[in-house]
Amino acid sequence: MRDESSLFVAEGNKLVLELLESDFQIKHIVALPCWLSGKQFPIGIELIETDLPGMKKISSLTTPTEVLAVVEMPKLNLDFSDISQQLALVLDDIRDPGNLGTIIRLADWFGIENIICSIETVDVFNPKVVQATMGAILRVKLHYMDLAAFIEDISKQNKIPVYGTYMDGTSIYKEKLTQPALLVMGNEGKGISPELKKYISKTISIPTYAKSSGSESLNVAVATGIVLSEFKRQEPNSAIRQPNDN
Amino acid sequence: MRDESSLFVAEGNKLVLELLESDFQIKHIVALPCWLSGKQFPIGIELIETDLPGMKKISSLTTPTEVLAVVEMPKLNLDFSDISQQLALVLDDIRDPGNLGTIIRLADWFGIENIICSIETVDVFNPKVVQATMGAILRVKLHYMDLAAFIEDISKQNKIPVYGTYMDGTSIYKEKLTQPALLVMGNEGKGISPELKKYISKTISIPTYAKSSGSESLNVAVATGIVLSEFKRQEPNSAIRQPNDN
Repeated sequence: MRDESSLFVAEGNKLVLELLESDFQIKHIVALPCWLSGKQFPIGIELIETDLPGMKKISSLTTPTEVLAVVEMPKLNLDFSDISQQLALVLDDIRDPGNLGTIIRLADWFGIENIICSIETVDVFNPKVVQATMGAILRVKLHYMDLAAFIEDISKQNKIPVYGTYMDGTSIYKEKLTQPALLVMGNEGKGISPELKKYISKTISIPTYAKSSGSESLNVAVATGIVLSEFKRQEPNSAIRQPNDN
Repeated sequence: MRDESSLFVAEGNKLVLELLESDFQIKHIVALPCWLSGKQFPIGIELIETDLPGMKKISSLTTPTEVLAVVEMPKLNLDFSDISQQLALVLDDIRDPGNLGTIIRLADWFGIENIICSIETVDVFNPKVVQATMGAILRVKLHYMDLAAFIEDISKQNKIPVYGTYMDGTSIYKEKLTQPALLVMGNEGKGISPELKKYISKTISIPTYAKSSGSESLNVAVATGIVLSEFKRQEPNSAIRQPNDN
């Protein structure tokens, strides 16, 4: 269980401005004077002014930005009846922060609200993950738990298909991808763990057109993007929103 | 123009073994004694034995591997009549080595033989790119040149569609994606440069299903994967090879 009073760090102008507009509770903002000046802040946020060397000292980025915020981790409730009516992502030991961040950004793009992560998956509040999500962390909910127990629990509520991406599954272009469903993506090197295999009801794969057998796999974030896109393309009456429709 | 006698470094057991099987000219192999022992090498490769601290000193990786090879950069010819009969990727200033490496791996997966890069695109022989390609660098040809001149030249040979991925193009799920074609992907922050815009004959986009307007873009490598996958899905009589068909 995550400590309820835990904090995480979010860096950069865009992300901090988005946090200020969100329901997240910001505890401290550390920033250069030029960033703070002229802005109004809600009561309860401690503002700390510093200079560039100061930012450099506390930043986790190679090029520190003008502002960072220290934020309370949200308390999330996993609503099983919600999940059993949606397409949800299940991540089995994604270890690379960049990959997790990119997957969260993808989930946000494709309207996925919940990601269920194995305990061994890299922490969503790892600073590198927070940066890689480009703000999507504010909109997608991540839940860390034992995946086998989770899939068993959800099956009791509603028997939804559990798709697993393998090297030798049915082509995603041929398989009818139905929702609600769980889509399981495996670890970068090892794929989906053997313990989870028995819960997978449909094994799918991205066809390769490679001319030699050397290309063994796709990056897991890229593979997630391709499969999610195909799920959405096949969605009946999908309410496609063009990015500029706002 | 790249210097014809230039060399690049490739690290790791799998990559060096693949290089030894390829047409690439290896000049030196630097390795731990345990890696060298029992192996046969072609004449002309200088073998240099070292220890772990030695590997650490010359490696560009945080965790050095047991072997690295110093390899001649290949001399590539861009065959315009080839390109005008295929789907080729055009990269307009991709700057992140990880992104370029992932795109090369994707190209290999989807049977794309040629990638045309703007001069400002990160060097394919940057060690981080070489590592991120996971060997795909041996199979996909990258050509660096002025993109506007390239597209003008190829248009003289054969008028093929030039697809450009934008935020407000036609949905890739609705657009008929035909081949041969050029697929232009833009820079991470700025997208496709204004100078190239006039050469784009079809603007396409990946639809978003996001519930808020905060999600502004997808990672360029992920976007490339989604668009290439959709090109391949729409391909008539496509010779789909399952990854395990070898």
